[in-house]
Amino acid sequence: MSDVISAVPVRDALAPFAERMLATLDALLPASDAEEGRLYDAMRYSALGGGKFIRPYIVLASGRMFGVDETCALRAGAAVEMIHAYSLIHDDLPAMDDDDMRRGRPSCHRAFDEATAILAGDALLTLSFEVLADPATHPNPAVRSDLVAALAGFAGGRGMVGGQMIDLESEHAEVGAELIARLEMMKTGALISFSAGAGAILGEAPAEARANLEAFGVELGLAFQITDDLLDAVGNETDVGKAVGKDADAGKATFVSALGVEGARQEARRVTDSALSRLDPFGARADELRSVAEFVLARNS
Amino acid sequence: MSDVISAVPVRDALAPFAERMLATLDALLPASDAEEGRLYDAMRYSALGGGKFIRPYIVLASGRMFGVDETCALRAGAAVEMIHAYSLIHDDLPAMDDDDMRRGRPSCHRAFDEATAILAGDALLTLSFEVLADPATHPNPAVRSDLVAALAGFAGGRGMVGGQMIDLESEHAEVGAELIARLEMMKTGALISFSAGAGAILGEAPAEARANLEAFGVELGLAFQITDDLLDAVGNETDVGKAVGKDADAGKATFVSALGVEGARQEARRVTDSALSRLDPFGARADELRSVAEFVLARNS
Repeated sequence: MSDVISAVPVRDALAPFAERMLATLDALLPASDAEEGRLYDAMRYSALGGGKFIRPYIVLASGRMFGVDETCALRAGAAVEMIHAYSLIHDDLPAMDDDDMRRGRPSCHRAFDEATAILAGDALLTLSFEVLADPATHPNPAVRSDLVAALAGFAGGRGMVGGQMIDLESEHAEVGAELIARLEMMKTGALISFSAGAGAILGEAPAEARANLEAFGVELGLAFQITDDLLDAVGNETDVGKAVGKDADAGKATFVSALGVEGARQEARRVTDSALSRLDPFGARADELRSVAEFVLARNS
Repeated sequence: MSDVISAVPVRDALAPFAERMLATLDALLPASDAEEGRLYDAMRYSALGGGKFIRPYIVLASGRMFGVDETCALRAGAAVEMIHAYSLIHDDLPAMDDDDMRRGRPSCHRAFDEATAILAGDALLTLSFEVLADPATHPNPAVRSDLVAALAGFAGGRGMVGGQMIDLESEHAEVGAELIARLEMMKTGALISFSAGAGAILGEAPAEARANLEAFGVELGLAFQITDDLLDAVGNETDVGKAVGKDADAGKATFVSALGVEGARQEARRVTDSALSRLDPFGARADELRSVAEFVLARNS
């Protein structure tokens, strides 16, 4: 597909999209001068702090395939971005990956403190479900309820959080590519799978369309994570915005440690092709999602 | 009211109720021998580990007022208990209250480790919304969506998590009874307010009934927390199941530090009476909730 699809349109589209996403998040995040204001400041620091908003962009692109109102898609995108932001806050904690830097500036617990960072993550996670359940996200309560059930399923113990548990358990262990694929499909794939399927939920599309998009998302997420591993192994600290080479230093299981740099590049390509095949039934309607996939694979690697 | 209502029936009812609640939670919590099994073990350790299930009991009692199916009430009760369990796990962390003991045995991060405890809390929080959004909790999606919105509102940054933030900010500070009341209504009152109102949501009762029950709940929660402060200040370590006198040692702001033991006892009584007055419109239908209130105030103090 790479000869017909260019990553440039997505890169060009992300900047103006990021402005609308920031405005949406800004309106949804609480602010206060009262005693709990420190919590809200930490939530805003992380949720508004330089994310590329790839997951919400996927929600928007998926929603466009089914004529979903953009305000609805932006709100669902804000919910998934809040989950993503909370997961980064908690993953960066000293008891977890112990990262001082995130997106080129201090991680939440370094900018605030550990207790505030734990609570900011908890509050962002909780707020994401409050946003999805709000009638402003969709007039049909069955759609809102489906969105909550889907996001909770993908983000919880059988999805993203379970993947992080496996990741921690796999440190300093001999881990094969199969287990790494499973953990990364849970840790990263699950949230992108929700994002790709969210448009079908919002558009009240047939179950088969949602299933295809979720399958696309989980494989795209896997490709995304392999690319992230490659960036850590061979990327430049300034481009990546966080310390590189940390995975190898920490003895973490990654596709690069299991397959080598070239093997990981090939695997990313293979998984991306499989993901793209999930979009075949949608024809040209899915071109925007195809561009996102190419963009994810192409970034800085 | 204390001359006509006895706390004994609630104490007698809690033991058989606890068995049904444990069975409900056991069926909802994941289990696995795979790599992520450690996460599920930690979730089970905390959610099934000796809670009194007062919040789910309030959901059940509230639901009975509106003829709610018991299976629905048990599931909604399981959701609020998962939130309660997650909040205890995170509150006990070294960066927060640093408690080694909870309910007479090691706290989650002592029984497992800090990273697992953080993730177990995250997964319980997420699962609670998955349970509420599941059609098995209620056939009407509008009810499910309302439950999610209500629980997220009460449990998040403007409720329980915000209250914990204020609590941490108030350590070693001169704090008046007014701010303590605000933080404890958020930290403890919010979740009990959800529990009391949940029966009205499940029973599709008028908004006024729900509002009265939520007002009852938040004041009952305040009374509950004042009693908890009293137990910490004057209770016996064996009865309470955790270290006592820790609040004073940690310089934490409590009703006892602001009002003294006798003043706190009077305030608990006053707040309880106010809470009970919220039940007047329901007549004898609310007797079970009245008994819960008396039980909460009477326990070990």
